[in-house]
Amino acid sequence: MKLSHRITHLTGGGSDGWDVFYRARRMISEGVAVTELTIGEHDIGTHPSILDAMNASAVGGHTGYAMVPGTALLRDTVAARVQTRTGVPTTRDNVLITPGGQAALFAAHSAACDYGDTALYLDPYYATYPGTIRGVGAIAKAVRTRAEDAFQPRAADIDAAAHGAVSLLINTPNNPTGVIYSRETLESIAEVCKRRDLWLISDEVYDTQVWEGGHVSPRALPDMAERTLVVGSMSKSHAMTGSRCGWIVAPAEVIGHLINLATHTTYGVPGFIQDAASFALSSGRELEDEISEPFRRRRALASGILGRQNAVTMIPSQGAMYLMLDIRATGLTGEAFANALLDSHHIAVMPGESFGRAAAGHVRVAMTIEAFAAALSTLCQFASVLSEQRAFE
Amino acid sequence: MKLSHRITHLTGGGSDGWDVFYRARRMISEGVAVTELTIGEHDIGTHPSILDAMNASAVGGHTGYAMVPGTALLRDTVAARVQTRTGVPTTRDNVLITPGGQAALFAAHSAACDYGDTALYLDPYYATYPGTIRGVGAIAKAVRTRAEDAFQPRAADIDAAAHGAVSLLINTPNNPTGVIYSRETLESIAEVCKRRDLWLISDEVYDTQVWEGGHVSPRALPDMAERTLVVGSMSKSHAMTGSRCGWIVAPAEVIGHLINLATHTTYGVPGFIQDAASFALSSGRELEDEISEPFRRRRALASGILGRQNAVTMIPSQGAMYLMLDIRATGLTGEAFANALLDSHHIAVMPGESFGRAAAGHVRVAMTIEAFAAALSTLCQFASVLSEQRAFE
Repeated sequence: MKLSHRITHLTGGGSDGWDVFYRARRMISEGVAVTELTIGEHDIGTHPSILDAMNASAVGGHTGYAMVPGTALLRDTVAARVQTRTGVPTTRDNVLITPGGQAALFAAHSAACDYGDTALYLDPYYATYPGTIRGVGAIAKAVRTRAEDAFQPRAADIDAAAHGAVSLLINTPNNPTGVIYSRETLESIAEVCKRRDLWLISDEVYDTQVWEGGHVSPRALPDMAERTLVVGSMSKSHAMTGSRCGWIVAPAEVIGHLINLATHTTYGVPGFIQDAASFALSSGRELEDEISEPFRRRRALASGILGRQNAVTMIPSQGAMYLMLDIRATGLTGEAFANALLDSHHIAVMPGESFGRAAAGHVRVAMTIEAFAAALSTLCQFASVLSEQRAFE
Repeated sequence: MKLSHRITHLTGGGSDGWDVFYRARRMISEGVAVTELTIGEHDIGTHPSILDAMNASAVGGHTGYAMVPGTALLRDTVAARVQTRTGVPTTRDNVLITPGGQAALFAAHSAACDYGDTALYLDPYYATYPGTIRGVGAIAKAVRTRAEDAFQPRAADIDAAAHGAVSLLINTPNNPTGVIYSRETLESIAEVCKRRDLWLISDEVYDTQVWEGGHVSPRALPDMAERTLVVGSMSKSHAMTGSRCGWIVAPAEVIGHLINLATHTTYGVPGFIQDAASFALSSGRELEDEISEPFRRRRALASGILGRQNAVTMIPSQGAMYLMLDIRATGLTGEAFANALLDSHHIAVMPGESFGRAAAGHVRVAMTIEAFAAALSTLCQFASVLSEQRAFE
């Protein structure tokens, strides 16, 4: 039986770049004590008060179909939050609630791209980006950013790739690099989008994890609200990864069409989860800070550890829950290094190559557990030994 | 800004057929006491024991990312259930958990159809079917069934439409007609699928609501397991509409690709919801019978009411939570009748035309509240008055 080309070619062929991740999972299931620093998941569960709100909603009877666009309460809450944080007038009509940020990414590209259209994304990238674009039948075209620019994109690189493209996907604060795009970077990206008539799909799911400087939403830049589709989520800000609750903020006309799409792809998000999300967002900054605090603390630890050695260089990490480390001094690829580290020290990190060619020779370390600091020291020592061996070869 | 053709043409243009539904909702929000018999939703919430299981799972820590294919427990539970009910060997590798049946329908068509492919569906149809097909970039082609056949499809009609098609979507027990496809009907459909090399996408979400005869899953017919993608859901069987938890049962190779798709479209289903679903499915037939019992009872009431009049004829309703009523004796279209009934008696039913051309001159009545029987009597009297007026014209 013939399957669609779209689904059989979703991952682009070859390795999906997650081999180290799967190998670590397998080792864990076999009883090996692996220090897991691969994926972006908190070491805490969802806050008990949020779970209480969810249970109260469900027990209170909110177990039937929720309206497809999202509950009025959550749409209003998200709109008010976005308006407060960005200054851009935002109402319920600008908001579609989705079952998670990934569903929002898929919906945004469905709105922007027809079959055969070209959609741009920046390398390095979150693992699902190119497959999401292929999943809507579009051509995924990577624009390389550079380690020497601390992975801040260059507008000229985007412009050079933009001929015939319909959209550009960006992510700030960035996964996998931890970099936050500067206002200057975003202004120059916005200019390209306007000149080339691109939709800007702006993944801002890490917008509460800002360690240095501030997060700018490009939707707030001049004339950008009409062409920007912002992806948001409860996952990272409120440790609700498993609740699958996110949103798109976009022009009302786009939301209207996206509601039609949602009717045909997911048919809404559980009402009790939306009520939990509304409660969580209404709990204010204190709860968010409680959730982001461990990453801020671990990043400070990391700066100390990395400052005391030379084998590994950190890309300036301004936000999100990751460090991107340059391990090229070891002479290994990121993948070889990650595999060797897993074998020799039972520490699992992601090869930079999992996130594209631009991060080759790097590894991404998720700061997601307390054992992170000790593991990072071990990683540095391991890199140091490898670098010295190399010097003697 | 240009939006994709796919998203702007999802609903096929014109009315989406839900005008009466939206008008009823508006009247309710304005304080009018409307008897709502439009959508397929229980008048009970999810069972407290299921909500307890959900809360226990969440509080117990299952709030992080669930594995994208679904939890091992739920996949195993669904596989065992399908095997028990159909006799077809089924394992975890044949099951993908999705955020609801609609997401499963979308995923199934994503797997079967490339851009520009033709996908068949039967008229009358559940409202989202053609949009789901258009949403994957395929051409939605309706095959008409006939009121005089009690909407059992004719294999010859499907065969005549099948040239160049890649898939056929069926739904039994059927929404909107309440008809269950006979073994003979399904065998003849299976022959067409094999002869024309079609994927059979079999929506069986009403498989626990069987009032007469028995439900046959076409996946159990000879040589059909390899080409059948079964869509299932917790919504109807366990009054979990708002939990958005469903699945696809398919050949393992297809599930492998569908997991890739799920990674890029939804990234899994909340673990605590999956645990609630596993609990619900493990509670056995007693709980399912408790949930389906009101519909069985109301259908018996309906048979009595309809047997005492001649203005309205019921399509033999063997399953699901709907009655399809032929109101052509009134001389009105289904839409005109539904609008008039809403205006004059504040009873909301769905026009047959909402579900395609084949059900023109019909209305669908959801047996979803206790006030259903009184409303049905009123509907019959209203139809009788209209029919008599017509006879005098």
